[in-house]
Amino acid sequence: MKRSMYAGRVRSEHIGQEITLKGWVGRRRDLGGLIFVDLRDREGIMQLVINPEEVSSSIMETAETLRSEFVIQVTGTVAAREQANDKLPTGSVELKVSDLVILNTAKTTPFEIKDGVEAADDTRLRYRYLDLRRPEMLENFKLRAKVTHSIRNYLDALEFIDVETPMLTKSTPEGARDYLVPSRVSQGHFYALPQSPQITKQLLMNAGFDRYYQIVKCFRDEDLRGDRQPEFTQVDLETSFLNEQEIQDIVEGMIAKVMKDTKGIDVTLPFPRMAYDHAMNAYGSDKPDTRFDMLLQDLTATVKNVDFKVFSEAPVVKAIVVKDSADKYSRKDIDKLTEVAKQYGAKGLAWVKMTEGSLAGPVAKFLTEIESDLTATLQLAENDLVLFVADILEVANSTLGALRTRIAKELGMIDESKFNFLWVIDWPMFEWSEEEGRYMSAHHPFTLPTDETAHELEGELANVRAVAYDIVLNGYELGGGSLRINQKEIQERMFKALGFSAEDANEQFGFLLEAMDYGFPPHGGLAIGLDRLVMILAGKDNIREVIAFPKNNKASDPMTQAPSLVASKQLEELALTVESYD
Amino acid sequence: MKRSMYAGRVRSEHIGQEITLKGWVGRRRDLGGLIFVDLRDREGIMQLVINPEEVSSSIMETAETLRSEFVIQVTGTVAAREQANDKLPTGSVELKVSDLVILNTAKTTPFEIKDGVEAADDTRLRYRYLDLRRPEMLENFKLRAKVTHSIRNYLDALEFIDVETPMLTKSTPEGARDYLVPSRVSQGHFYALPQSPQITKQLLMNAGFDRYYQIVKCFRDEDLRGDRQPEFTQVDLETSFLNEQEIQDIVEGMIAKVMKDTKGIDVTLPFPRMAYDHAMNAYGSDKPDTRFDMLLQDLTATVKNVDFKVFSEAPVVKAIVVKDSADKYSRKDIDKLTEVAKQYGAKGLAWVKMTEGSLAGPVAKFLTEIESDLTATLQLAENDLVLFVADILEVANSTLGALRTRIAKELGMIDESKFNFLWVIDWPMFEWSEEEGRYMSAHHPFTLPTDETAHELEGELANVRAVAYDIVLNGYELGGGSLRINQKEIQERMFKALGFSAEDANEQFGFLLEAMDYGFPPHGGLAIGLDRLVMILAGKDNIREVIAFPKNNKASDPMTQAPSLVASKQLEELALTVESYD
Repeated sequence: MKRSMYAGRVRSEHIGQEITLKGWVGRRRDLGGLIFVDLRDREGIMQLVINPEEVSSSIMETAETLRSEFVIQVTGTVAAREQANDKLPTGSVELKVSDLVILNTAKTTPFEIKDGVEAADDTRLRYRYLDLRRPEMLENFKLRAKVTHSIRNYLDALEFIDVETPMLTKSTPEGARDYLVPSRVSQGHFYALPQSPQITKQLLMNAGFDRYYQIVKCFRDEDLRGDRQPEFTQVDLETSFLNEQEIQDIVEGMIAKVMKDTKGIDVTLPFPRMAYDHAMNAYGSDKPDTRFDMLLQDLTATVKNVDFKVFSEAPVVKAIVVKDSADKYSRKDIDKLTEVAKQYGAKGLAWVKMTEGSLAGPVAKFLTEIESDLTATLQLAENDLVLFVADILEVANSTLGALRTRIAKELGMIDESKFNFLWVIDWPMFEWSEEEGRYMSAHHPFTLPTDETAHELEGELANVRAVAYDIVLNGYELGGGSLRINQKEIQERMFKALGFSAEDANEQFGFLLEAMDYGFPPHGGLAIGLDRLVMILAGKDNIREVIAFPKNNKASDPMTQAPSLVASKQLEELALTVESYD
Repeated sequence: MKRSMYAGRVRSEHIGQEITLKGWVGRRRDLGGLIFVDLRDREGIMQLVINPEEVSSSIMETAETLRSEFVIQVTGTVAAREQANDKLPTGSVELKVSDLVILNTAKTTPFEIKDGVEAADDTRLRYRYLDLRRPEMLENFKLRAKVTHSIRNYLDALEFIDVETPMLTKSTPEGARDYLVPSRVSQGHFYALPQSPQITKQLLMNAGFDRYYQIVKCFRDEDLRGDRQPEFTQVDLETSFLNEQEIQDIVEGMIAKVMKDTKGIDVTLPFPRMAYDHAMNAYGSDKPDTRFDMLLQDLTATVKNVDFKVFSEAPVVKAIVVKDSADKYSRKDIDKLTEVAKQYGAKGLAWVKMTEGSLAGPVAKFLTEIESDLTATLQLAENDLVLFVADILEVANSTLGALRTRIAKELGMIDESKFNFLWVIDWPMFEWSEEEGRYMSAHHPFTLPTDETAHELEGELANVRAVAYDIVLNGYELGGGSLRINQKEIQERMFKALGFSAEDANEQFGFLLEAMDYGFPPHGGLAIGLDRLVMILAGKDNIREVIAFPKNNKASDPMTQAPSLVASKQLEELALTVESYD
């Protein structure tokens, strides 16, 4: 028998029709001789009624064997339900079963197939096919498909060409750690899985494709955090001959369409622009969450002459004011915040509370002389809490930025219904890496420096600015883009500034430099993290919820046990020996 | 200045308009003081005229430096062309240049950027960005994007959910050779790149997704041939609760839409069905090219009593008749065909020609007694050539099948405008592998056996039939599909039939077997080779022409030099040692 429709789509208009449904047994109740079954399929749940007076005894016997997650096929007549269930879209109808076939049986599942059911992460991943049966999970993947459908139709309409770039590429040490793929044909040689199709898409611009996009898997062998996975998906695009404003316009239109198609929301265009320096100074983050204020304030001048060396001798003193919340933070709570501050490199966290019209707290006594000044500058009111960090600018910013976000979440200050998109622009080209002891690309080495600052490639690298733009949503970096270098001479200077010898540059990127000899057009683009975008739209806080088969935080899959040991023949063919096993 | 439009789209309707174009210098001619430039962008070529009486001397000087593949920006007025060029869509107009800016220069390219220009394969790949500038290459990628757009919209409309499956999966020895990815977190353990998302998509059916599709990269570390690449792209789909006919209907609708959208062709539905045995016996191929006849004919009975042991004692004698072409095949030509026959395992190739009303050729003398019989059976006419193979059935079929295709190509018997789709059905479940000395899956071990033959899993494996269907186009296997096993008991018997011990089956596929405990629905699907489909639609005979950055036949990329040596630190982190280098 052919299925007539999805169970979740039966409505009053179908009353009287004979239909066939196929799906999973959700719940079975035996009541007054009747058997009630919740039949679940991907579109919802529908109540079946099996009545011994209306079916054969053999069907009744079959019905009595039904257990949760059995796969069944039922035929019957749609009838009005005596007591409608308003919680279900199918709640006004039920199916009076005339025929029933069991298509497959099921053991008791390790967790109930139901929204909101808690199970350990690894249990969910081990039985991912059961975890994905939960309606809320399925919805995430419908949403994800809707997002990509929307993006593709938008870009196709703008004549972007969807081009697939290689997965087996060349390893380059610059950037994050590559996943390697040993070659059998060229033993001792390795491909790398792409961290992004950055150079390849630039070469497509060189080839005259003019507008390229791809929704593509990328790979980074980094230690995993909540919103990181070994493989992730990028909406990758590149254009020729456009300036940064034109590229941003295209991306804004794309985001607006996605928001409209998936959430029915009309976002306001253009998105706000915020300079990188302002983002860092006012929000303590290069991906500011603008759904709430609590901005960072610079008090360096204000506290310059106080009799408290921690403040007066610090390079900068900055603060955030937690409005009307002093009573919500005990000393113990503030100790916890201090621990957070230390994780960000701060030596400590100073604080005062505005209580009964004056400042209170351990450092209040040092501030009496500037109390009115401070109160005015910070516009302090009763019950405000002020948190200070005295340190170098970078530490003060990042510490207070982290506290700002944490406190806003703790106090429920964030309007979760908001989608605050913005562009962070005017990026520095380089960031100092303490770990590497050198300047590294804030984005990547193919980013175009501004005309005004390109000369600093041979001067003060901190002063070089990039024609780069990140798109930020609710405190997440959604994506980043830039204009790219298309002149060999500038690209060579960039590699030199990054510490490459001419030989190294040629060894690793010679093909790109050579390509610049043959009429490389001006070009630029952007990449958006699809997993993260869908995660935010789905209201989740971990990208695993929107990836069908993710890895756990040891980068392994509890279901298939990948990665696994392989046959010695496989290693022999690759001329590889394993030195030690985990 | 913003580009007004693509150069290739300027038409008579734009005459009088001032426009700005950006693109590449194709050809420059200096004629009577004027400079003519062919400006090329992705939509075509447009003639520019730079007239010293209409531009400043500095612009004229700039124009005089223009060389092929310089990137330029020009502004000017569209004018009617005195002598229209009918070969170009822009041939009725030209741009009278008022401003000209060089955006980038170019060295002399290693080959001319022009359709039909010959260059060595590795040269084309080394300078792939230049190769892709050739209009015919760009067209291939526009076509490819149009095909995927068409497929996606068709499947989205049918509520297939586009789901991404993992690239980092588990290695399984069954099937082709895996590409491995060493794990750093679990040293000594390896991921494998997927040969197809077969099991994963089955698990999505288990999860209740009901209809899944994905256009996805797959990987096989096999030796390369013309239409093979290390990575290739599959249109992969899977459905629950449908029978094979319903799945084929969906696929036919998809193909029909692609043909309509990309070639404007209305294909006739449903596609013909051909049983596997008939395909092998009549066409000598499991992917028959039905654009021409020349079918294989069985003469075993006819030649049973001739005085020619090669024929009379052979298990089978089969022949093809090359109509009206005896005069086109000299002995030397037939020697060449004999060489081909030997590659397919035949001991030789017997032949006769119908000349002046009777059979001629080395074996004709043995056939005199059956000449009229043979003439009648094969419906021979003057100037026909008959090629015989006497051997076991498999060798006779595959040899004559290969000759049939080769001769049809040589003689131009194939109508290249035809797109002959068909389904090959009624597949055997297993094929005997001479190499492995055992029966192997003709498709894969998850294919459902027919109810009628499943008992032969414990009997004669050659008799087990699969609910499998391949889609064939013009002699190419476009894709294959099947219903899958959803019952643990059958899956276990299948593994056993393939020679797996219970331990091995559990080690490799335990997670799939376990999944079958929890209500695995009936399901089936299909995968189509996208590269091959686009290749055929583009009229090419190598998938490299429709892959942006393919590998050469050593699986390497002459442009980036991937695969390459990697830093010793990278290998240390993976606890790997290379035993020998190529």
